[in-house]
Amino acid sequence: MVTAGAEMTTIAIDAMGGDHAPRAEVEGAILAAREFGLHILLVGMEAAIKQELSRHGHRGLPIEIVGATEVITMSDSPSQAFRRKKESSMHVAARLVRDGKAEAMVSAGNTGAAMTVARFVLGTLPSVDRPALAAAFPNMKDRVSVILDVGANVDSKPEQIRQFAVMGEIYFRAIWGVKRPRVALLSIGEEEMKGNELTREASNLLKQSSLNFVGNVEGRDVFRGNVDVIVCDGFIGNVALKISEGLVEHVQGMLKKAIKSSLKSQIGYALSKQAFDDFRKRTDSSETGGAPLLGVRGITIIAHGRSNPNAIKNAIRVAGELCRARVNEKIDQELSAAAVAAQG
Amino acid sequence: MVTAGAEMTTIAIDAMGGDHAPRAEVEGAILAAREFGLHILLVGMEAAIKQELSRHGHRGLPIEIVGATEVITMSDSPSQAFRRKKESSMHVAARLVRDGKAEAMVSAGNTGAAMTVARFVLGTLPSVDRPALAAAFPNMKDRVSVILDVGANVDSKPEQIRQFAVMGEIYFRAIWGVKRPRVALLSIGEEEMKGNELTREASNLLKQSSLNFVGNVEGRDVFRGNVDVIVCDGFIGNVALKISEGLVEHVQGMLKKAIKSSLKSQIGYALSKQAFDDFRKRTDSSETGGAPLLGVRGITIIAHGRSNPNAIKNAIRVAGELCRARVNEKIDQELSAAAVAAQG
Repeated sequence: MVTAGAEMTTIAIDAMGGDHAPRAEVEGAILAAREFGLHILLVGMEAAIKQELSRHGHRGLPIEIVGATEVITMSDSPSQAFRRKKESSMHVAARLVRDGKAEAMVSAGNTGAAMTVARFVLGTLPSVDRPALAAAFPNMKDRVSVILDVGANVDSKPEQIRQFAVMGEIYFRAIWGVKRPRVALLSIGEEEMKGNELTREASNLLKQSSLNFVGNVEGRDVFRGNVDVIVCDGFIGNVALKISEGLVEHVQGMLKKAIKSSLKSQIGYALSKQAFDDFRKRTDSSETGGAPLLGVRGITIIAHGRSNPNAIKNAIRVAGELCRARVNEKIDQELSAAAVAAQG
Repeated sequence: MVTAGAEMTTIAIDAMGGDHAPRAEVEGAILAAREFGLHILLVGMEAAIKQELSRHGHRGLPIEIVGATEVITMSDSPSQAFRRKKESSMHVAARLVRDGKAEAMVSAGNTGAAMTVARFVLGTLPSVDRPALAAAFPNMKDRVSVILDVGANVDSKPEQIRQFAVMGEIYFRAIWGVKRPRVALLSIGEEEMKGNELTREASNLLKQSSLNFVGNVEGRDVFRGNVDVIVCDGFIGNVALKISEGLVEHVQGMLKKAIKSSLKSQIGYALSKQAFDDFRKRTDSSETGGAPLLGVRGITIIAHGRSNPNAIKNAIRVAGELCRARVNEKIDQELSAAAVAAQG
């Protein structure tokens, strides 16, 4: 067993979560431990994890196994998974964070279950109404725009949208190093009167805040790269995320089909392969490092079920960066200060 | 002047609306008159329309000019355009429909203004709560899925969502000839409990209806082609539409950039150009024929501001088909019958 230095950040990985578990999780953990000097706890079925570990050189790396006897599957309902599978790798990983044995958890498992487990095992930060899931969308400026909430909540209140903005801004600053991220509200036009009841009230709150609020944007602006953080109710954000994923899949399928249609296009494709590979890489979410569930006590990163080792590695990197940036402390400070100001 | 036969359907075109007006409108009208045997009224500045007409052979075609002295621009606010520009081509086209001189209007102008003008000049069908804008999304099955509402309403009520479903079903049947279109509700997961307050109530209403309601779908399903009509609140639908448009733009930009990156890719591109042209054509909304504003007294088609002559032609085709299918009569019958059944 490896014993990590006291100053090392410890990350618990739900090793049984994703579609390629535990293979992708173990390989991603090895890459992350090597590259970022993080202490990693691989949580799950010991035999399966050991077998995967044995396929790689991991001697001297700060990686440990923590056993868990149950596995939450993609078909488990979030509430049942939470209530009935207390010995799952997801629960055990969350308890490691709750009990101070890890600072962050990463799971590529059932998103709904991971959100529920994190929310109820870890609890919500004192000043936060509701945690929010933040997803990074690549944009035309070769950067990303972060949208939150993408599905942790529905029927949000204006004050909750304001809290999402504060959490999103702190997250964006921590990961992309922008001092004053531009914050926008997702609506159906730039004019305030064009939104719905929620956006009209939320827009007012955001204007009064100390955030760098640049106003309302519409769906089209998500990819333009003129704003950094885009806030919305989780129903809207989830539709935006799933529509985008579906469309990228559709476009790739269409291109593939179109290119296979003639020998000439096939030769053309072979010659322009590098361009396609670039394209695929840039639409590949594995580079952006998973979606943090902001507002819970303990850093929680939810990675895509399809995560490959590189995606897991990047999710672990982001978990480490959020710990180092003391994101939760900052969220709590900022929201408590705003609450005091509102009362005063 | 051409006098149309009594049995010919008459369509009023806002000739001053789109980004390429009146050029695209006039050319599209000529194509449509020739191809579909429709009687067309080109509404707008007479001199400009005449000049465009003179560039084409249109002798013997049932096309007339109806003068209008004002033009609504893309930057006019919908309410101001409605109240202050009563002599605009948009208003005059709507009045032609209201007064029975045309059966349908087509505009590629300011969408908000066109919706407002159509709604208030024409009025809403007696049994309809709120008109809805329906947009066709191309899907992986080489067909389309229609989403409504994509922006005529926000903060919809469950009963309004049910009405959107009825209108969308009748529209889909009229244009794509499917006898029992599959109707779905846009949500954030298939399970009913996963939605928000609106989708839970709307889902119940849809289940009780006589529609072919197949349940809730998520954003990803928009492109899968497993459903024909997808209903949602206009805020959600508008975000979905704009996100999709923005992403297609982004993807095309990325591909172009990637392909220009090396000489090899450029040669590759030249060889696979046909494939790209196919791709572009299939992501091009000009084939789908604009978005009908369903539920107003008189067929109203709102085309994209960027419409080219082909897009205008197809919007006119759809207008003609909706007239011929007596879509408004059917909507009114169906919704009145449902209202009577609900009271009984």
